[in-house]
Amino acid sequence: MPQPIPAFALAQKLKADVLGNPGNMITGMNSLREAQPGDISFLANKKYEDLLKDTKASVVLIGRDVEQQPKDGQTFILCDDPNTAFAMIGEAFAPPPPVYPVGVHPTAVVAPDAKIGENVSVGPHVVIEPGAEVGDNTILVAQVYVGHNAKIGDNCLLYPFVMVRERCILGNKVILHSGVVIGGDGFGFAPTARGIFKIPQFGIVQIDDDVEIGANSTVDRARFGRTHIGTQTKIDNLVMVAHNVQVGNACFLVSQCGIAGSAELGDGVIMGAKSGINGHIQVGAGTQIAGTSGLAKGCPPKSIMLGTPAEPQREWMARHGLPKTVKKLQEKIKALEEKLAALESKI
Amino acid sequence: MPQPIPAFALAQKLKADVLGNPGNMITGMNSLREAQPGDISFLANKKYEDLLKDTKASVVLIGRDVEQQPKDGQTFILCDDPNTAFAMIGEAFAPPPPVYPVGVHPTAVVAPDAKIGENVSVGPHVVIEPGAEVGDNTILVAQVYVGHNAKIGDNCLLYPFVMVRERCILGNKVILHSGVVIGGDGFGFAPTARGIFKIPQFGIVQIDDDVEIGANSTVDRARFGRTHIGTQTKIDNLVMVAHNVQVGNACFLVSQCGIAGSAELGDGVIMGAKSGINGHIQVGAGTQIAGTSGLAKGCPPKSIMLGTPAEPQREWMARHGLPKTVKKLQEKIKALEEKLAALESKI
Amino acid sequence: MPQPIPAFALAQKLKADVLGNPGNMITGMNSLREAQPGDISFLANKKYEDLLKDTKASVVLIGRDVEQQPKDGQTFILCDDPNTAFAMIGEAFAPPPPVYPVGVHPTAVVAPDAKIGENVSVGPHVVIEPGAEVGDNTILVAQVYVGHNAKIGDNCLLYPFVMVRERCILGNKVILHSGVVIGGDGFGFAPTARGIFKIPQFGIVQIDDDVEIGANSTVDRARFGRTHIGTQTKIDNLVMVAHNVQVGNACFLVSQCGIAGSAELGDGVIMGAKSGINGHIQVGAGTQIAGTSGLAKGCPPKSIMLGTPAEPQREWMARHGLPKTVKKLQEKIKALEEKLAALESKI
Repeated sequence: MPQPIPAFALAQKLKADVLGNPGNMITGMNSLREAQPGDISFLANKKYEDLLKDTKASVVLIGRDVEQQPKDGQTFILCDDPNTAFAMIGEAFAPPPPVYPVGVHPTAVVAPDAKIGENVSVGPHVVIEPGAEVGDNTILVAQVYVGHNAKIGDNCLLYPFVMVRERCILGNKVILHSGVVIGGDGFGFAPTARGIFKIPQFGIVQIDDDVEIGANSTVDRARFGRTHIGTQTKIDNLVMVAHNVQVGNACFLVSQCGIAGSAELGDGVIMGAKSGINGHIQVGAGTQIAGTSGLAKGCPPKSIMLGTPAEPQREWMARHGLPKTVKKLQEKIKALEEKLAALESKI
Repeated sequence: MPQPIPAFALAQKLKADVLGNPGNMITGMNSLREAQPGDISFLANKKYEDLLKDTKASVVLIGRDVEQQPKDGQTFILCDDPNTAFAMIGEAFAPPPPVYPVGVHPTAVVAPDAKIGENVSVGPHVVIEPGAEVGDNTILVAQVYVGHNAKIGDNCLLYPFVMVRERCILGNKVILHSGVVIGGDGFGFAPTARGIFKIPQFGIVQIDDDVEIGANSTVDRARFGRTHIGTQTKIDNLVMVAHNVQVGNACFLVSQCGIAGSAELGDGVIMGAKSGINGHIQVGAGTQIAGTSGLAKGCPPKSIMLGTPAEPQREWMARHGLPKTVKKLQEKIKALEEKLAALESKI
Repeated sequence: MPQPIPAFALAQKLKADVLGNPGNMITGMNSLREAQPGDISFLANKKYEDLLKDTKASVVLIGRDVEQQPKDGQTFILCDDPNTAFAMIGEAFAPPPPVYPVGVHPTAVVAPDAKIGENVSVGPHVVIEPGAEVGDNTILVAQVYVGHNAKIGDNCLLYPFVMVRERCILGNKVILHSGVVIGGDGFGFAPTARGIFKIPQFGIVQIDDDVEIGANSTVDRARFGRTHIGTQTKIDNLVMVAHNVQVGNACFLVSQCGIAGSAELGDGVIMGAKSGINGHIQVGAGTQIAGTSGLAKGCPPKSIMLGTPAEPQREWMARHGLPKTVKKLQEKIKALEEKLAALESKI
């Protein structure tokens, strides 16, 4: 833990206002629930305001719209965006990240004709195959595999057990977490009278700059051409991107979601956790697919889709509300039956 | 295969009763469907009683409530809990587990300042980074990665391609199967006008004693503080635990389920296969979430939740039964229409 | 890229007809959307015919039923099965696959008593434990783990970070993509008054000839006996096969699907992406389970099952159409109410 900072000094840096004890010394950071005395925490969303009552945090970053007062001895720092402020001060309190030494570790197996850039860290038990290229400042932490003629850009960070197969291309500032598999064969087979034949997957995976892919996610190589992940797209853990999929820029693919072969996603598409997209369909830019939903057909830009098969919000709400709707119908029918019986007895 | 045992000798050990041939020699064990002559098998649940008819097992452990008789030459061993009895005798018939030699394999790369306990097995191509600690009797089978300042407790077993990143903490008797990723970055990004910024994930993962995690599951490090897995919790394969999640003790997280960021699970929660839990919600102790269900909102202790969004059993049953309910309404409406028509014609 | 071929020469080889410019030189191959001048592409399905208008492909393989004409300078090659034809010519235009050198890499750790066949490639940082066997012509690309007494057949291809644990058995021509885990412990625990006990998983995994398993999929070892994958079965990425599951021959298990313990699948079962099969049930041969569906109960051969819990197509359609059905009922009830009111006012 670095040097403690008094609450007022931090508030000054953030150009924020202080409520309560300005002199609290901040020695660490944590969530409201897990915070201990000395910790700074934050309230990102007024709807969790109740957490303020029980937190042991000495200092809390909160929005200007919160009306609660700090407890005795506690400090509130009022700012416009507590979430971002908390992220910004994080670096001051976090332990420094590990240093991965520059150079090729003696246990790494690097093909003589592989091109290794300046200032690169090739850790223990890494394998770099013939014809591969690794750009400047890139870190291959340990036990990474870089296939034949694969290209890794500058400033990339590949964690242990990452696999990049032959001819695949990574841009700059790409982060691949442990267990990511880039360029495994697409799932293509031709059932014939003489058995099931494997359809060769000749293509590659191309990943553009500033992409990050979470642990144990897989991006399959194309049958031909490329499977493509656009710049700034962020992929969570255990996500599946099938062969020939085209993912736009700045998409978010949340944990355990999957995209079937040859689907195309415009820019800024958000896939919720465990959602799926069918093969060969086009998903308009800015579309949001709710968690667990399965998109069967393509949709225009900025669609909001829920359920399986996924529907627009309005249709989904009607479907979800069916038990209530049916209950009302039951009551109406009962009333009709009674009225009709009364009428029958009158005649 | 070890020494054959006669059925009566086994029954004596189990304090169980013998029906049929007491002298059958047991030479192996298998399920009722796959068993061959010489094998012992078991019937754990009376509802599968039909399997007794076709099994080739020479000896079958069954409950005292089963009324079927053994076939010619076959032996039934009647006991209170055939399932547990079968598990107990398993050790006698199973091949011995592999021996992983104590000591550091010459191909392992262990930082000079890493602390390695007594009686530890560090297998081939393992990497242990500076400041890491490995407790007594722990086995790192092969090709494991232990990050900077990570702590592995005593009597742990880590299979090949397990990754434990910097500063993460494992208790004692923890089993991590191949491909488990502990402490990968949480999925946190801040979209801004100037692009999408990565929110640093400063926290750790803490895993308590007696936890087992299945192949290719991932537990992300916290944004700050810790992602926490309580003691005795068992996690299956391909499960995703996101950053800052708090999992209680003795929970079961079945295959391909996932928990979104900052959710909190009480003790004894059971998540069925492929189920999901939304972020930032609290799941009461002893709650059971059915397979494939998506829990959108928090729930009190001992809830039983089904569907997506998950509902209590009663509501789910009503929803699931809607086609029948609607069919009845259709019939009632038809009857009303006919009666009304009859009435109209009368007047 | 290999030698360019003129369109007419290719058509001759395929015994196909040429429409438009016969002399176009083919220098590469790609999808209609991604193709550039010089590329050959194909239209597999008439329903995507619109793509012909905008493609830059110089040559397009199309079915004989397409009526569109090639654009100026473009070539259409008319054949019976453009999809298969495209796959067949792929080899001519694809870069050659990487060569993995025969022999044992000096960094591989191979137990002295392991049996290595003829013409085998054991790549860098591979670990082969005592008693293991590797058949002729098999390639262990790099960083593979082969456990004690495991058997790998002939002509297999195992990519980096594949794990095959003790005593598991692979047939011939098996392909395992990166991160596949064969023989991890099944998820078996016995909750008791004194805590949760691990049920030992003594069995193995047996994988028959011509099976291919995608990246990061897991097949757990049996509690006893074997988990079995039949010949020619193809498994996609991130799939979970639990302990004691029996998968027939020529099944397709698409990405992120999962099979719970002891389920049995007949031959030719197709599981759509993200679908699930409950434990201890029997799925008839030739059954198709739609993507995302959860099969709760067994089903006869050639079933088509959709939804969760999965139903036959007819029931599923009725359920899916409920919003429309209910809307019609609402209208009928409204009409009844009006008629009844009219009748009441008459009397």
